[in-house]
Order: sequence, then C-alpha cells, then structure tokens
Amino acid sequence: MKKYIDLDFAKLDIERKERRGFQETVFCEPKENNELLEIFKAFFENGANVLGTRASLEQFEFLKKHFEGKISYNKKAKTITLINNEIEQIGEVAIITGGTGDIAVAEEASETAKFFGSRVKKYYDIGIAGLNRLLDNIEEIRKANVIVAIAGMEGALPSVVAGLVNVPVIALPTSVGYGASLNGLSALLTMLNSCTEGITVVNIDNGFNAGYSANQINRLIEKGK
Amino acid sequence: MKKYIDLDFAKLDIERKERRGFQETVFCEPKENNELLEIFKAFFENGANVLGTRASLEQFEFLKKHFEGKISYNKKAKTITLINNEIEQIGEVAIITGGTGDIAVAEEASETAKFFGSRVKKYYDIGIAGLNRLLDNIEEIRKANVIVAIAGMEGALPSVVAGLVNVPVIALPTSVGYGASLNGLSALLTMLNSCTEGITVVNIDNGFNAGYSANQINRLIEKGK
Amino acid sequence: MKKYIDLDFAKLDIERKERRGFQETVFCEPKENNELLEIFKAFFENGANVLGTRASLEQFEFLKKHFEGKISYNKKAKTITLINNEIEQIGEVAIITGGTGDIAVAEEASETAKFFGSRVKKYYDIGIAGLNRLLDNIEEIRKANVIVAIAGMEGALPSVVAGLVNVPVIALPTSVGYGASLNGLSALLTMLNSCTEGITVVNIDNGFNAGYSANQINRLIEKGK
Amino acid sequence: MKKYIDLDFAKLDIERKERRGFQETVFCEPKENNELLEIFKAFFENGANVLGTRASLEQFEFLKKHFEGKISYNKKAKTITLINNEIEQIGEVAIITGGTGDIAVAEEASETAKFFGSRVKKYYDIGIAGLNRLLDNIEEIRKANVIVAIAGMEGALPSVVAGLVNVPVIALPTSVGYGASLNGLSALLTMLNSCTEGITVVNIDNGFNAGYSANQINRLIEKGK
Amino acid sequence: MKKYIDLDFAKLDIERKERRGFQETVFCEPKENNELLEIFKAFFENGANVLGTRASLEQFEFLKKHFEGKISYNKKAKTITLINNEIEQIGEVAIITGGTGDIAVAEEASETAKFFGSRVKKYYDIGIAGLNRLLDNIEEIRKANVIVAIAGMEGALPSVVAGLVNVPVIALPTSVGYGASLNGLSALLTMLNSCTEGITVVNIDNGFNAGYSANQINRLIEKGK
Amino acid sequence: MKKYIDLDFAKLDIERKERRGFQETVFCEPKENNELLEIFKAFFENGANVLGTRASLEQFEFLKKHFEGKISYNKKAKTITLINNEIEQIGEVAIITGGTGDIAVAEEASETAKFFGSRVKKYYDIGIAGLNRLLDNIEEIRKANVIVAIAGMEGALPSVVAGLVNVPVIALPTSVGYGASLNGLSALLTMLNSCTEGITVVNIDNGFNAGYSANQINRLIEKGK
Amino acid sequence: MKKYIDLDFAKLDIERKERRGFQETVFCEPKENNELLEIFKAFFENGANVLGTRASLEQFEFLKKHFEGKISYNKKAKTITLINNEIEQIGEVAIITGGTGDIAVAEEASETAKFFGSRVKKYYDIGIAGLNRLLDNIEEIRKANVIVAIAGMEGALPSVVAGLVNVPVIALPTSVGYGASLNGLSALLTMLNSCTEGITVVNIDNGFNAGYSANQINRLIEKGK
Amino acid sequence: MKKYIDLDFAKLDIERKERRGFQETVFCEPKENNELLEIFKAFFENGANVLGTRASLEQFEFLKKHFEGKISYNKKAKTITLINNEIEQIGEVAIITGGTGDIAVAEEASETAKFFGSRVKKYYDIGIAGLNRLLDNIEEIRKANVIVAIAGMEGALPSVVAGLVNVPVIALPTSVGYGASLNGLSALLTMLNSCTEGITVVNIDNGFNAGYSANQINRLIEKGK
Repeated sequence: MKKYIDLDFAKLDIERKERRGFQETVFCEPKENNELLEIFKAFFENGANVLGTRASLEQFEFLKKHFEGKISYNKKAKTITLINNEIEQIGEVAIITGGTGDIAVAEEASETAKFFGSRVKKYYDIGIAGLNRLLDNIEEIRKANVIVAIAGMEGALPSVVAGLVNVPVIALPTSVGYGASLNGLSALLTMLNSCTEGITVVNIDNGFNAGYSANQINRLIEKGK
Repeated sequence: MKKYIDLDFAKLDIERKERRGFQETVFCEPKENNELLEIFKAFFENGANVLGTRASLEQFEFLKKHFEGKISYNKKAKTITLINNEIEQIGEVAIITGGTGDIAVAEEASETAKFFGSRVKKYYDIGIAGLNRLLDNIEEIRKANVIVAIAGMEGALPSVVAGLVNVPVIALPTSVGYGASLNGLSALLTMLNSCTEGITVVNIDNGFNAGYSANQINRLIEKGK
Repeated sequence: MKKYIDLDFAKLDIERKERRGFQETVFCEPKENNELLEIFKAFFENGANVLGTRASLEQFEFLKKHFEGKISYNKKAKTITLINNEIEQIGEVAIITGGTGDIAVAEEASETAKFFGSRVKKYYDIGIAGLNRLLDNIEEIRKANVIVAIAGMEGALPSVVAGLVNVPVIALPTSVGYGASLNGLSALLTMLNSCTEGITVVNIDNGFNAGYSANQINRLIEKGK
Repeated sequence: MKKYIDLDFAKLDIERKERRGFQETVFCEPKENNELLEIFKAFFENGANVLGTRASLEQFEFLKKHFEGKISYNKKAKTITLINNEIEQIGEVAIITGGTGDIAVAEEASETAKFFGSRVKKYYDIGIAGLNRLLDNIEEIRKANVIVAIAGMEGALPSVVAGLVNVPVIALPTSVGYGASLNGLSALLTMLNSCTEGITVVNIDNGFNAGYSANQINRLIEKGK
Repeated sequence: MKKYIDLDFAKLDIERKERRGFQETVFCEPKENNELLEIFKAFFENGANVLGTRASLEQFEFLKKHFEGKISYNKKAKTITLINNEIEQIGEVAIITGGTGDIAVAEEASETAKFFGSRVKKYYDIGIAGLNRLLDNIEEIRKANVIVAIAGMEGALPSVVAGLVNVPVIALPTSVGYGASLNGLSALLTMLNSCTEGITVVNIDNGFNAGYSANQINRLIEKGK
Repeated sequence: MKKYIDLDFAKLDIERKERRGFQETVFCEPKENNELLEIFKAFFENGANVLGTRASLEQFEFLKKHFEGKISYNKKAKTITLINNEIEQIGEVAIITGGTGDIAVAEEASETAKFFGSRVKKYYDIGIAGLNRLLDNIEEIRKANVIVAIAGMEGALPSVVAGLVNVPVIALPTSVGYGASLNGLSALLTMLNSCTEGITVVNIDNGFNAGYSANQINRLIEKGK
Repeated sequence: MKKYIDLDFAKLDIERKERRGFQETVFCEPKENNELLEIFKAFFENGANVLGTRASLEQFEFLKKHFEGKISYNKKAKTITLINNEIEQIGEVAIITGGTGDIAVAEEASETAKFFGSRVKKYYDIGIAGLNRLLDNIEEIRKANVIVAIAGMEGALPSVVAGLVNVPVIALPTSVGYGASLNGLSALLTMLNSCTEGITVVNIDNGFNAGYSANQINRLIEKGK
Repeated sequence: MKKYIDLDFAKLDIERKERRGFQETVFCEPKENNELLEIFKAFFENGANVLGTRASLEQFEFLKKHFEGKISYNKKAKTITLINNEIEQIGEVAIITGGTGDIAVAEEASETAKFFGSRVKKYYDIGIAGLNRLLDNIEEIRKANVIVAIAGMEGALPSVVAGLVNVPVIALPTSVGYGASLNGLSALLTMLNSCTEGITVVNIDNGFNAGYSANQINRLIEKGK
C-alpha cells in the first residue's frame, strides 16, 4: 500500500496508475472551483494528464485561465481534458447510439476511451425502429475490438447488435424517454435481461465507465496482458 | 341496460355479446368445480359457445363428464373450449414468440383468437438473439392483419418486428426470465417504451387479452364496422 | 434493406413510409434548432409532410421562418405540422378524457391521428366520478372505429368504456395526479390490469403512439389491408 | 392506563373494549394451537365473545373440542367465532365485489362487521366490465349506511360506485390478478388515486379492517356518538 | 341519469349534489385563469357555493376581481371559497398533525370539512416523538365524531391515536420527509399496515379527500341517514 | 493481515476475534451437513465457541451426534450454540416486540446477544395498538443499556419507545404482515424515517445483527473501550 | 407526563432533555422566519442551547440579528448553533466519508455530535476505490468509540470499515450518485444488507440522526449509564 | 443471413458459431425431456459440442441414456456438457465469490468459461467482511486476464477487487440474502453504482453470461482479434 496526495477535502490516489494501469479521473460536478483547481494542479504537477467529467462550461472557463493551451472542453460530453503528455491511441472501439438524444452520453464514452488510449469510431442514430440503418453499418462495426451500444427508451439496441457480432458489447442505458422509461431504469433492465449473450452493462448515463471499460478491453486485446 | 343470469356467487353477463360483439369468457383458476359447472351449463343452455381460460387439467376432466364430445382442452394453453355452434375463422393473426418458454402464453392467445373467429399462423422461437430466424420469416408475417409479438426476458421482439411491418403489433410480455426480469415487469417496460410506433401492450402473460384484441381488430379489418 | 438520409447526428429513415405505411415523425424535444431545421428540410425536400412532437413554441418560431405558410403549431399538443401534400382523413377515431388535465395529451393523440389520415371526434372531461357524462355520450362514441381513452389519477375510464362498446380501446395513461399516482404509473397499472377485455395500452403521456396506433387500425378498418 | 392479561408470549388487551368500544380480535395465522387455546380461553373466561381471523380449518378443529356448541367457522372467510353473548346487529353495511375471486376477502369483511354488530347485505360479482350488473343493483346498495367495495385486478369498482351514492365507501383491494397486478398493489394504487371523493382505503386483502371500520361507522350513524 | 353543464373543455356535474349529497369541487392547479372563471361562474350562477383546491394566490387574485366580497383564500391550504349561501357547521371533526410541516395539508382538510358542513378542531404538532403532547390532548380529541390524523416521515401517528379512541380515524400521509420517505410513500405504507383497527387511508397530501370523507361521516353521525 | 483456515469451499476468519472483538458466526441455511460439520469442527478445535444461525432442526440433529452435550438448539430462534468456554453475561439488553408474530426474530436477537456476552430481558407483544401494555413496562425497559425494538406490519414501535428512553434503540423490522407490508419493507421504511432521534436500523428479520450490535454497545458501556 | 411550550403551530417538548437525556432539535427547513425566531427564543429563554438543522443561510442571517454573538452557522452542514452554556466534549467519534460529495452530510453529523457532547475526528475521501487511503488511516480510526461511515453511490464503505474495527459502525447513505443510485436508495440497501456484522443504518442524508446516535453511544461508553 | 434447424417448437441457430464465434447454448429449465433430446441430437449431429444450463438432475439422467460416455453433469452448476470435440482452454479467468452461498452461480460461470475455451481459477469465500482473505489472494488473482467477481447480500466485492487490479472485472450479483436484499436487486444496484471504474455487470444469478463474456474477452486478449 502506498502514497496519496492529501488535500484534506480530497485524497488523490496517485498510486492508481501503477496499481490499476490508468490514472484517477476527476468527477467535477460536486466540486467548487478552488477545489477543482487544487486537484488539477496536484495531478498536473505530478506529471499526469487529467480527465474531468460532468464539468460545467463555467468550471472549464475557470480552469482554462490556469492551464491555457493545454486544456480543452467537449461541450456535449461535458468533459475537460488537460494534457501533459501525448496520448497514443490504438485498436478500435465502436460507439453506437439508438437515437440522437443519446449523443451526450456517447460523447462522454468517446472522450474517455480516447483519453485512455483507444481509437474510436462513432455510429449515431441507428436504432432498431429502422433496422436498415443498423444492418447497413454492421460490417463496419464488426471491425472494432469492443462495442459500446447506447440506448434510452426501451434500450433494445445492444441485444440486437450483440447478436450480429463476435466481440464484447458494453451496454450503456440512457435516461432518454418519459413515463414508463423511469429515467432510464427501463432501458437498464432491458439490457440486463438480454437473451443475447456477451453483453455486460453499466449504470444509466455512465458514459465514463463504459468508455473506460471499453478502452481497457481494447488495449488488452491489442497489447496482450 | 339489460339482463344477466344471477348465480349468487356470479352474475353472468349474457347481454355482453350483443353489447360488445363477443361473449363473456370464464376465468377458471379461482373457481370450484361445481361453480364452473353451473357457469358452463348456464352459458351453454343459453345457446353460447364457452371459452374457459387458466383451467387445470383436473377442472377439464370434471367438466368433460358433463359435456362429452363437445368440449376440448389445450394443455399448453390451459384453455377449455365448449362448442355449441361452429366458429367461422377469417382473416389472419400472426402469433410470434421470442423463445420456446413463451409458447404457453402464445397458445392461450391463439386459442382465444381462434375461438372468437380468426385464422391464426404461429412463428415460435424467432427472437432477436438470432435475427436471421426473424428476417427469414418476415415476408410471411407481413401477410397478417394483426401481429401478436410475445417475449419474456428483455422483451425486445415487438420493437424489432413493428419496425418491419405495416400492421398493428400487440406486444405481450411474459414472465419468462429471472433476476432483473422481475417476473415479466422488465419485458413489460421494454414494450411500453418502444421507440417503434404502432405497438400497444397488454398485461404480463395475458394471452387471453392479446388474442381477444387481435381477433377484434382482425375481424373489423376483414368485415368493416 | 434500403437507403436513409445520413445527417451524421441523425439518420432519416425515408424508406419507412414504403416499409411501414407511414412516414417517420420528428421527436423535437432533445434537438437543437439547427438540427431540427436540417431534419425538417431533408424530409420536406424529399416530398414528405412532417410531424414534429414535443416541440416548444420557441422551436416552432424558429422553424416558421423557413416554412412560412406551410407550417403550423398546436400549443396544447406541442406538435408542429409541415404540409407538402393534402391529407385525406377517413373513418373515425374517438378521443375521450377523464378530466381537463388530460387535454394536452389528448391533443397530441388527435393531431397525430389526423396527420396520418383519420377523422377525429373528441369527448373531454367525461370521467367516471360523474358517470352520467359518459353514459350521455356513449351512443355517439360507439360510432367510432377505434377509441383512445385517456385518464390520469386512477385511470379507470378505459375499463368502463371498453365494457360498453364493440371496438378496440387504446388506453392512454397520463401523469396527472399526485402522491400515489406515481407520475402516471398508477394509471398505467390500472389499464394493464383491466378486467375488461379488448383494451391495449401505451406509455404514460404517449399521445403520439396512441394516435398513431388508432389511426393505423382505423384506416385498416376503412380500407382493408 | 389499565390492566391486560399477561400470557408471556402475548399480552391480552382486555381494556380495549372500554377504551375503543370493541374487543380485541385474534390474528390466528402465526399462532400455535396451544397458544390459540390459551388466548381464546382467557378472553372467554373474561366474559367476551371472540373473533379469530386468518384461521385454518385445522386450528378450528382443535379449538372446537374445547368450545363445542359455542364456536363456528366460516371456511371462505377463514374466521372463527366464539359466542358468549348474543350480538345485536343494526343498521346496514353493503359489501360488494367486482368478481368471484374476491369473495373470500368479502366474507372476512362480512363476518367481522356482523360480529361487531352490523347487518350486512352482499352483492357479489358486479364489476365494471358489465356495468349493467352494478346499475341494476345500485338503488338497493344506496340504502346502506356504509359500503365496502372490493376489487382486485384494476380495482376500479370503488371509484364507480362512490360516484353513484351518498354514503362513505371503504375501498378494499384484493390480490386477485397476475402480472402487473403486483399482488394487489395495482388495485390499491387505483383506489388511493380515485378521482371520486368520499373513498378511503384499507390494506390489500384486509377484509377484517374493512369490516371493522364499516361497522364502526354504521353503528355511529345508527346510534350517534 | 341527468344533466351537466357542457363547457367543452369541462363538463360540470351539477347533478352531483342531488346524487351524492355534496357539490362538485374545482381542482384549480391545471386550469387556466379563463377556464377557472368560466367554471366558478357557471356553478355560482347555478346557485352553488364553490370550493377550489390547489389554487395559487395568482389564480385567486384573478378570480377575486369577479367575485369581490364573496370569495376568500386560505394561503396555507391553497383553497378558494366562494359563498352563495351560509354553511351550517355541525358535529366535530378533529384534525391532528405529527409536525409543523404537515400544517398545509391539514388546513386543506380543515377548509374542506368546514365548507361541506362540519365544525373542526385542530391539534397541530403532537407527534409521537414527544408522546406527552398527544396524551395531554387525548381527552379533548376523543370528543370528535371523526379524527383526521396527519403525518409525514414514518407516519405512525394514526396508529397510536386510533389505539386510544372509539371513533373512526382517517389517516392522511404527507410528503414531508426526505431520503427513504420516498415523497410520502413510506408514511402511506405505514398507515395501510397499521396493526390498529379502525383506520382507513387516503392518498398522500390529499387533504381534500380526508376532509370530505371526515365531513361525510361526521354529518351522517349527527343527522343519521 | 493474518491467517484463516482454508476449507476450499469456505475460508474461516479465525483472526476475526482479535481484530473485531468477537468470533465469526456460521450462517447455516445454505450449507450442506458435511460442510457445516467441517466448519464447526475447525472452529471448535481452534478453541472457540460457535454460534450457528438460520439452522434447521435437521441440521442440528446431524451436528448433535458429533458434539453431544456441548451443543444446543433454540427452535424458535433457529440457532445452534456450541460451547467450549463459559460465556460471561454482563449489562442488560432489552428486547421488545410489537406482536407475537415477531418472537422468532426476537429469539434470534436474544440468543446472539447472550452468546456474545450480554444479559437479556424480553418484553413480548407490547405493540402500540394497546399503548397501556408498553407504558406499563417502560420503567423496567429504561434500565437496559440498549433496546432492540422489533415490529412487523407498520413498524411504529421503535419510534414510540425511543421517544420515552435515554439509551440507543436498535430498530429491527420483521416480515410479519401482508399486502402493503411488502414482506417487511414497509416496517423497514417506517423505522428509517422515524421522527424520533436515536434510532438506528438493521435489515428485515436480521435478529442476528440486531443482537450482535446491541451486545457490542452494551459491553462497551459496561466495560468501556 | 409533563409540560411543553404551546406555540399553537408548534409544541416544544422541553421535557425531552430530562426524559431522553438530550434537548429537542429544530428542523428549520419548512419553517418561516418568524416561526423559527419564536422557537429559538422559547428554548433559549428556557435556558437551553439550540441546534437548528437544514437551515438556509437566509434563515441564519435573520436569526443572527436577535442572537448576535451567541449564534453561529456551518455553511456546509447547514446547521445553526445557539449557545447558552458551554458544551463539554468527551470521548471520540470518527466520521469518515467515501468521497468529497459526502462532506455536507458528514458536516451535519459532526456538528450534531459535537453539539451534544462528543469530540469528533474526520477522515474524508477515503473510499474503497483506493483502498490504500483507508488502510493508511485505519489504526487512527480504530481509536474512536463509534464510527459514522458515510457513502453514496454503491455505499460499500461501512461494510469494509466494520470488518476492520471493534466498535459500532453507524452507516449513513447519501444521495450522491445518479442513474441506478436512485437518490441514495442503492447505498441504503447496500448498508442494510451488509455481510459484516456490527453495522446499523440511518436514513439517506440523515447526518443529524447519525451524529445524534453516535454521540449517545459515545457518551454512554465514556460515562457509563 | 443463413440457415437454422427448424424443430417447430424451436429454431436452432446453427449459423451462430460462424457469426458470433461461439455456438448457441441450451437453456434447459423450461423444456420437456423430448424437446431437450431433439435439440441436443440436432446440435450433436451437426458436429457441435453442446452446453445445457439450468438443467435438473432428472433432465440429465434422461439425456445420459442417449449420449452415454460423452455427456456429463455439474450438480452445483446445474450444467450439462456434451462433448464432440476436445476443447482447448487458454489464458486465465479468475472466478471469486464473497461467500459460500454464491458457489452454485460461480460454478455455472466456471463451466461456461471452460466450455468455450478458457482456463479458470477459483477463489471462493473471500468476501469483504474478512478483508485479509482477499488481500492474501490478490497477487494470484491479478494474474488473470479477466475477473468474475460474485457476491450476494450487499454485493460490494467487485468494487473492492476492481480497485486492486488492472484487468476488467465482470460483476455478477446473486440472490443470496434476505429482507432488503430483494432477491439480489440490492447487490445488482451496488455493482451498477460502483465508484470503482472498470466494472461491468450482468443479470442476477446469470453465471452463464458472466462466464461467456469473461471467456470472450479472455480469448481475445490471448489470441487478438
């Protein structure tokens, strides 16, 4: 067991990269500007790249002043990326969505997978209501090492996709929908109950974990363990 | 407002056929043998055919003694049919299931649709895990006036089917599954949240109502109103 | 399997009319103004009428500038209608509500059914607390080919109506209510559990799908398959 | 604050009659035969009549040996009645059910109301699927001081009845149904959300409390406070 | 079956008073100002007093201009009262709350009970955390014909009170609380499961129905049927 | 970090006593007879007393043959106790129940608290429907260092008790009840939402953890840390 | 049974300190400024210290004018403290959180424990994703008499901590998280189901009750009963 | 799109191996003996190995007569394995459980992973209540390419494990537990909400899918894509 940086309100797990292979990420939403700055600085000075998720534009604007030129923001994904060292992106992760409403979550997954070292290809709005759109793209999708399949409402896209490919599918439910969608619970249940094998599931709207897991698998496939 | 047969423990709505177009059905499960016999007799003597649902083999054996030759039992569907007058079957209802576990419910739907006057075609075990099985049959399925699409687990079959046809799809969730299937609630939610339009839903395992509604629509399409 | 228009963030399923009988609809809520404009334009230039649902007044005002004279808005329904070709309306769909709070959802159903080619008659605020209001109108309601029965709170209206008519009833629960109404879940459950046969159900507040399905059945009854 | 009989495993609240107007009842289900006997004896020797609910036939057979001639059993209601002193029954409680499956619960309500001193009239199987059956009996039902309206499945009967009468309606949901009936939760929610005022609700299958409350109100109306 | 006033968007059930004993109430929340005015006018001109519930101050200010001197507002209860004819208040309804947070709901119950003809006595903030407060008032509370017992959070007040009195207790759960209170569901469940008999329950925050039912019972006790 | 006994199918945490103050307990329910025997033997030979919970009589009979004279069974609690060394019992834990149905769970709590070193006093069937029974015993109950308050159905007993004492109350919900009791969830929610401070809660029917925690606190109060 | 201060809208339980050992606390959120002032004044004049929870800064600013110099506010905890008499703080309560998002709730627990007489040590952001942070601090944490373990999301921290210590752990779930965290319900369930014994649980975000209970146990351990 | 074997009641997706990389599995539970035999025969004659899951001993005994010497049964896993061609097992999947109650599910995962070509190492009963057991084995566990982490009750094991390793963790909740474990839902929610990244989740008790997905990833890591 090793060291961490103690900021009193937060304890930065700088040992994580060595232990787990990838650096700790900053969940920005509940943090105040000064807290964020302290955290970003501490990681940065420790030599790391930093990924911040669920960050507001206002948080980004604040941080930008201190890391001009090294920091960028993806407005749809709500991610902040602070770069110390170039990231090598290898292999291929396919990120597909059922509808246009799922794009924000898809972008978070994409930013995360890229940050940790994967090439990403995106296929948006190819849901099962118009199966032709999916079938037209399936040969291309099959080339990826891992697929992140994203859907709200009834969330059936991962089941259909997994039935057509020979790689792992990470199912990512979104809170898109209303009424009986129960803020994404319905899509989540659909995915957990899939009759198609080879699907594993992450939390509703958790683009970050989907992107992280996809990247982890993709890199292990590319580089071996 | 008109008359009914008063059996004290039950009031038989014999006016229903005139008012609603179709005769009352007997929900057998909670009834004792003698009660069932009284009800079947009363309807029969009133000149009607009788459909009993959720009937045990034991209940059928008891009734059989009193209606020898006119009464039959579908063991999978658990339906009893007592025939006074020949039933004319018209049009076409397609009944499709995702898996083999859904067949009992499908048979209840089928027996009901046939009892009330529809021709039925069945397509069992064509779920989305092997899409080829569905696509191979889709041209045939498209010929029906109405489709009853049945699935347990993630319940995605109706969404996929409805996206490929131009007739109404009645979605029928089953309690097949385990864990997060929540005894069919998950499949039910999937169907209610379908992003494909033209799907309406009935209660979990309610083959009776699916068959009834499919028949009602099928006959109206065939005969007009 | 055929073509679609690829807008990158959206893939327009223009083959849908041929395949399913009716054109794709635009779910406006999650889309940005420019995205909406691109989509409406693409469909329009392809020769189609366009129906937009869950659209804000602000979205309509934006689109209006580009389709002056051809586009209109129903404020209660929150629907946008862009007309290329006259719509022929046939048959009859009855849309009834339990209370005045259900009118917004009823209007969405009505606009949808009319857009796709049905005549619509409306019966608002005839819920079961004052049964006289329903019974007074029942003869008129019975003339429709299909009934959309809408209710929030305890959602019992469809059960009562279906018991009095000989046509399909599409039950549409609304989120009107409080406390144990659970945002419409209670009404939804009521409708799914109806002891009256011939009722099928759609998602909470989903006026669009109720109107679509009612229209689909109504037209099949009028024109046959 | 006063005395009770201490049986170690149970403390009999013999002061309850004085404090609350009616004697404590014995919930038989979880008790062993010897415990039941001790309790029945203690109350009986204290001069009270005893009502036991949710009692098995086996429990009754055991007790019968000790109270021959004074004890009786209602098999549907699963109630045991041990009589010390004649019960005067006054006023009128109407007990109505939607279906035949609700009769067991209705009988428990009836036995309870009679035990504590009410006249009871029963109207079974007059649910809303065949409204004619209800409307035919409504004038008779209106004569009661209180109505216990019992239904499973969608549970809409109390709402419809309350809209037609000028006395309190106690709504009693039953666990009759399947799938989305959620063991009576759906009927319970329906009743709680009723748009008809003047309905109050008791727990699922709680015939005892419905009968108790109906009797309490009925007697207060008859005798004043 | 008789007449109603048809305002197109609403059908006023003016026959209700004759049929049910009490006049229809106006649920103001979802209605626009002009709709409210039309409804209030129609009832008023028909000779009735009018009670509006869940009304905003803004709605009241608008109506006030048209009924100056005859209309009043209870800000906590959010009720509007428009008086045509003096109301005679008889008997006694006790309204008790567990905490101060329940007062708004209590006031709605109180206003309703008074509007329909009951005298009301209030006992606020006598919850079970300090049982002495309840026991100090219990003799006074026992004088009422009916008790409305209101509580949020764990909702145990009705159970305790009912165990100490000999009149009906109407249990009214409120949405006061947080976390596992689930917006009042927890209190509702508590009340439904009460081990104390003689409690019936209404919907969360439904002061109106509690007041209505309490008044109905109170008046029947005072005047007989 | 230290040693454990590795039985392949189970790893016995013999370091736990040193680390946590008390020995690991054996959850018997899911284990086969031979597995149980291996585990009891290993602990016993290691010098420990052994407590087995949720054990069937059949499991006990099997073990008894191998530990004759040293092993005993509490049939209500379903606990097995194997004694190597005398247990010193100090302080006082009060265990109270609302009804007789809660006694099995209470006995499990009692056996556990005694096994780990507490004196226990029991107060059964003193629920709030007859408050006199609780108030009569409250002075005695106040003498304990910790109170375990057990109730099913509406679960209000802990709230009332905690309001009358100055020691910690551990609330233990049971699955006693039906309908809306939701197998104890309702009682659990009641306890979590208690408006009385000083209550902490354990899982439904978890007499073991309630007894363990009560003992832990009781001994710390008696002996200090 | 004794006296309380009757403010009409509230009844102040001034007997509570004698009866329960600690003074009543003021739940500020639902109260108006003038009500708060009346309550604070009444307690203060009665000689007590006052703790207000869930207070807004605006409420504090209002009260401050009347108790200048004696009143203070913790912005994170949202607690107001009005001091009449010095508080002696003894023993030790450890308050630990899984993440930085849990700090607000932790501060409420801390303020409460200190107000009622405990020394508090805080360990923030030592969640199980980086176990090294917890293990590094465990020796220090073990010195406390009681531990309050706070976590949102999956809420596993209390289980892990309790397995490493020999004192009671009060588990406090927070609503931090999204999607399937269900506003803290998921963390709550985790804690209730802990396989580690010696954990008891309080309501989601209920820092007050966790702090109160921890203090109560801590003081009893320090001072005996 | 290609061929399947049509058995009428089932359609065998023999194209699946080519399309997805692995052969279809037989879910035995809902099937009759003759149906099972037909299916096993068809696959076997087609040259495939067959894996049957959720099979009873009775089903195995029946099949055994037809495939003597080639078929075997794992009683804990309830899996049937019929071998045509030797299976090469490569790489390493670690399967770990929190308790002994999780072993049945673990064995299903293990049998599945081995059937499809992975080497498996098992670590049973190393749950977090005794963290020493996990930490002692962690170096060994880190050698696997993928980890399946299985737990019931609070389900925290995957979160803790994932924080210590650099490979993907598939979290598999079991229905072991009672009360608030809600038949595994609590463990499922815990896993979905994990604050540790790199965890994906499968359905409750779904050892099959966990084993399938782990094998799929393991083989891709070993062999590349």
